[in-house]
Amino acid sequence: MTSTTLKGQPLDRAVLDSMLRRRMFYTPSFEIYGGTAGLYDYGPPGCALQANVIDAWRKHFVLEEDMLEVDCPALTPMEVLKTSGHVDKFADWMCKDPKNGDIIRADHFVEEVLEARLKGDKEARGVKVVEKEEDPKKKKKKVKGATEAVKLNDAIVQEYEEVLAKIDNYNGEELGQLIKKYELKNLATGVEPSPPVAFNLMFQTAIGPSSNAPGFLRPETAQGQFLNFAKLLDYNQQQMPFASASIGKSFRNEISPRAGLLRVREFLMAEIEHYVDPHGGKKHDRFHEVKDVELILLNRHTQLAGQTHVKKVPIGQAVAEGTVDNETLGYFLARIHLFLKKIGVDQTKIRFRQHMANEMAHYATDCWDAELLTSYGWIECVGCADRSAYDLTVHAKKTGAPLVVRERLDTPISITEWQIELDKKKFGPHFKKDGKTVEAAIEALSQEQRETLAASLAVDGKITVDVEGVGNGKVEVSKDLIIIEKRTRTENTREFTPNVVEPSFGIGRILYCLYEHNYWTRGSEGDKDEARGVLSFPPTVAPTKVLLVPLSTHESFKPLVKYMSLKLRSLGVSSRVDDSSASIGKRYSRNDELGTPLGITIDFQSVQDKTFTLRDRDSTRQVRADEEKILAAIKSLVEGTKVWADIEKELPVFTGQDPDVVTLNPKSAAN
Amino acid sequence: MTSTTLKGQPLDRAVLDSMLRRRMFYTPSFEIYGGTAGLYDYGPPGCALQANVIDAWRKHFVLEEDMLEVDCPALTPMEVLKTSGHVDKFADWMCKDPKNGDIIRADHFVEEVLEARLKGDKEARGVKVVEKEEDPKKKKKKVKGATEAVKLNDAIVQEYEEVLAKIDNYNGEELGQLIKKYELKNLATGVEPSPPVAFNLMFQTAIGPSSNAPGFLRPETAQGQFLNFAKLLDYNQQQMPFASASIGKSFRNEISPRAGLLRVREFLMAEIEHYVDPHGGKKHDRFHEVKDVELILLNRHTQLAGQTHVKKVPIGQAVAEGTVDNETLGYFLARIHLFLKKIGVDQTKIRFRQHMANEMAHYATDCWDAELLTSYGWIECVGCADRSAYDLTVHAKKTGAPLVVRERLDTPISITEWQIELDKKKFGPHFKKDGKTVEAAIEALSQEQRETLAASLAVDGKITVDVEGVGNGKVEVSKDLIIIEKRTRTENTREFTPNVVEPSFGIGRILYCLYEHNYWTRGSEGDKDEARGVLSFPPTVAPTKVLLVPLSTHESFKPLVKYMSLKLRSLGVSSRVDDSSASIGKRYSRNDELGTPLGITIDFQSVQDKTFTLRDRDSTRQVRADEEKILAAIKSLVEGTKVWADIEKELPVFTGQDPDVVTLNPKSAAN
Repeated sequence: MTSTTLKGQPLDRAVLDSMLRRRMFYTPSFEIYGGTAGLYDYGPPGCALQANVIDAWRKHFVLEEDMLEVDCPALTPMEVLKTSGHVDKFADWMCKDPKNGDIIRADHFVEEVLEARLKGDKEARGVKVVEKEEDPKKKKKKVKGATEAVKLNDAIVQEYEEVLAKIDNYNGEELGQLIKKYELKNLATGVEPSPPVAFNLMFQTAIGPSSNAPGFLRPETAQGQFLNFAKLLDYNQQQMPFASASIGKSFRNEISPRAGLLRVREFLMAEIEHYVDPHGGKKHDRFHEVKDVELILLNRHTQLAGQTHVKKVPIGQAVAEGTVDNETLGYFLARIHLFLKKIGVDQTKIRFRQHMANEMAHYATDCWDAELLTSYGWIECVGCADRSAYDLTVHAKKTGAPLVVRERLDTPISITEWQIELDKKKFGPHFKKDGKTVEAAIEALSQEQRETLAASLAVDGKITVDVEGVGNGKVEVSKDLIIIEKRTRTENTREFTPNVVEPSFGIGRILYCLYEHNYWTRGSEGDKDEARGVLSFPPTVAPTKVLLVPLSTHESFKPLVKYMSLKLRSLGVSSRVDDSSASIGKRYSRNDELGTPLGITIDFQSVQDKTFTLRDRDSTRQVRADEEKILAAIKSLVEGTKVWADIEKELPVFTGQDPDVVTLNPKSAAN
Repeated sequence: MTSTTLKGQPLDRAVLDSMLRRRMFYTPSFEIYGGTAGLYDYGPPGCALQANVIDAWRKHFVLEEDMLEVDCPALTPMEVLKTSGHVDKFADWMCKDPKNGDIIRADHFVEEVLEARLKGDKEARGVKVVEKEEDPKKKKKKVKGATEAVKLNDAIVQEYEEVLAKIDNYNGEELGQLIKKYELKNLATGVEPSPPVAFNLMFQTAIGPSSNAPGFLRPETAQGQFLNFAKLLDYNQQQMPFASASIGKSFRNEISPRAGLLRVREFLMAEIEHYVDPHGGKKHDRFHEVKDVELILLNRHTQLAGQTHVKKVPIGQAVAEGTVDNETLGYFLARIHLFLKKIGVDQTKIRFRQHMANEMAHYATDCWDAELLTSYGWIECVGCADRSAYDLTVHAKKTGAPLVVRERLDTPISITEWQIELDKKKFGPHFKKDGKTVEAAIEALSQEQRETLAASLAVDGKITVDVEGVGNGKVEVSKDLIIIEKRTRTENTREFTPNVVEPSFGIGRILYCLYEHNYWTRGSEGDKDEARGVLSFPPTVAPTKVLLVPLSTHESFKPLVKYMSLKLRSLGVSSRVDDSSASIGKRYSRNDELGTPLGITIDFQSVQDKTFTLRDRDSTRQVRADEEKILAAIKSLVEGTKVWADIEKELPVFTGQDPDVVTLNPKSAAN
């Protein structure tokens, strides 16, 4: 599939990329030092776009639902990430090329070689290969490698395609088997790489001077939120449900970052942890507000059948039919969709893909990714998972902190169960520093386990309990320390561990998609070299809303430029002045590339009668009116209460001094 | 000196601190895991305050002066920080206690022991010791230690005091000498610690899987800005002067963090790098706008004389008299002052302290810190340094990148000088990978050096050049590769390396000062237990602007609460609802602690006639009016165009249902 611009033109990624760098939306970090893969700087328009997207996110999610925002450090002690599972499991598989020492990511390697072979097969069959847009670096590598036109057996072609469809789901051993089975060789050297080994993706460091306090840079912002659960519940005056939210940098030490801004080592995340009572079907009391929002869903069953066709269904129906597990999850999927729409994601380039059972963590109930279509394919930009009670449970178990909700019952209930009573006075001194851990393990025993242990306690005068991390993992507790009895108690409160629904946004990826989705070229019909790039960001997120352009550098314009700047600032509308000596057309072209939606021209008539022309970036059409009307039009366009067509109905269209006439001269359009 | 609240009451820091934690302005990070020193989380009101301060900063600096904002990664390759000097010099001195293994910061240790001895001396002399407010932990340690009432010799007292006054200026060797000379023993163990060794304060990690790419977390945001200089100049269409700005997290691996939020290991910085032509006295074309701003200055000479008296002078005068080195530096000092004033810093608790010659880096021209007075003493919150051309020069020299400005000369000039010409065709292949480095070193040779080398080239047929990092640091260049000649050329452009004026803000420290400066207690005259905390933040930065309080949980209030919420949101005013069952007084008390400046009460009369009462946090006085007038009053108060006294003149004062009457009952005020 060929990727397209906003106007359906074929997208030339190299041209877009060069424009983004030239206008400093982004630039490789430390470039004068040769650069560091996977690290990028945002320049002024990239920063402004990011700030506006974050602002929109905060309004759409945090303020709209009174979420409790927290800001936690990126530096995280090892113990926390050990409990969360990241120390053991947050890894990719890497291979080493024994010839040139290259370290390569195993799944990417398998993918690359198989794709190269399939391409060779197509060429051998005489099928015209529509080149998938690729990272230029990767392309070069391929050319170097052995992409020969070799015809493959039909069965092999099918096998390769099946492997590629499931490429995200193989573990290291399986990837190693694929490499052996298909005799995959590094395209750059012709050598088979070493078997895959796990490489933890977290950046490690030491906190404090003593080096016995290992820590990591967080790979996500979620853990800081979970650890604050009890305090946040308190802050929320014990009311459920509620959500916390966090915006901050996270870090992943990618093995060999590629795909530009899409796979980076340091990135801004915005995450929500919505805590919900697991009983009662996880209803959401604002679900009715979104139930008619239509989403494009690619569910698990379709994918299992090896297909990719999608259905557009109202979220209400998707939840009712059980495609989406519950209302709370469905509510957030719809809210994510509305947010992406608001900030300018192309509605034809978005889908929600459900995770396959083997893609999800074992504890997750259901998980969907909002994927956006780019020239790199479908890119996961937002994840939305129902993580059940996993996170709060593991941290509570490890620390003994009560990460639970206690709810007053209207009618007290009587409960008969196996209860455990510890002799605290003896228990603590007996187990010393392990006391808390042992106690937590005992408290976590199930009713069945308690019943069995009560029997052994009666017979042997002691019990043996599994306690991870203490001694050899088995701890003996004698009967002078513990009583296990069946008792009946009256409960006035119900205690439960909330489940978590977690919408998680990769802001950098979303920004990249906004570039591709809002980009198109003007004037390219006749001559490709004359094509001028435009970024049609919605005014909400556009880095600058209004460009102020005096006709020339004439002194008489200066006071008026300053006057209009201040007027716009007092309306809360960001503006920039371009009073360089470049032609008006050139100045507007520059700002079309920067995505500035509106432009005000200040000419000699403005000086006389305070009328101005207002230019629309997308149509390049202009209106002319007095200051008050122009400002009112700007305000309504920026706030989204009107569109350009409304303005043209209200204000006289202006055709003189059309800046676009000026830019028809290709020389003045350059830069 | 005893620290005071906003209303001049003695400040009880423990009470303030407990309130800040209870209201989740901040909380120790990873607390359920035992916490990690120097790392803190901000809860919802802390996050909102931070976001508002950042927003104010961006408006005051970045937008006001069209600064070019960049966002660069915290992960930084070692080479960059080697060049900047951080790898070699960004260190503190630490000692180890051989008895208990404690690692202590050498200067803090000397300070602590000498202060303890001086205190003992005062006690021995029968002087009542006014306890300086201290970290409770530190106090406990002192009690444990040997703070005996021992009278000291007068000369010794004076010596100790002089050492303490200069404590920031000793290097490791000197600190070691002080420890020996005064026989300083660890108060906790009675043992003399090991001699001080340097401990680099940067967190180290490895970027990528190969571990031969060492990196650090940046200790400041400045380097990312310097490395982008050439691109930013280009973005600014080659116009000088201009400034870049950056807001982001920085990291310092403090040896033993204390002083709570004031010394942390991860913190938000906001930094500006203003680039200015070093010729012409570093004038600033907006200096006249600030020249009458009065600053409290503690200059270098006063400090040298061992004094601390300050002068309040207009910045125009300070620059004219040469106290502040130049207009650009003076401009930013005034702008910093205005910013701090705007966000709510107490104007009686601010001073600008000039760095002593030995405090500044050798290359700096002048440097001033904005210090804010807290219960921990005067705290450096903003630094403002004229760093000359140092940063751009070292990075240019290391990388060969032209970090310079080229300015067109109106009248071309003729220059006769020693020029170097390299035979590029032979030069590159000869030096291979070192070519660039060697070339940069040659290009950097001064006119004097060139003259000398020209002579040796003529005599020996080769020259030897110092090139750091290549071979043994000495490189031979033979005459077939190089020509050194005296030539005359005509210059149409002037090339120079800009100087940098760098205002650098520690946002976390500023936030802490805002807490202390805006805190006071109400109702404490009679009974201390009845004292209720208030945080009188200016509306601009207050976490929430308006609290909406329905009289009770009665159903009839709900639609009106929602209606007013939406009204406020459309005005861009953040509000929160407290519809809990607590008394009105209790709810208002809670929000006084959260610093919410305004409150709207919705009662039965509101339901009937849509009139509301509006409450002022600071006076607890109320007015009553219809919806439109109340909203207009809120808007003008939040935007700062009116103060409460104006509102009382316009709208009828309301005295019924005074929530404060309710809170006179101490039980209902509790929470």
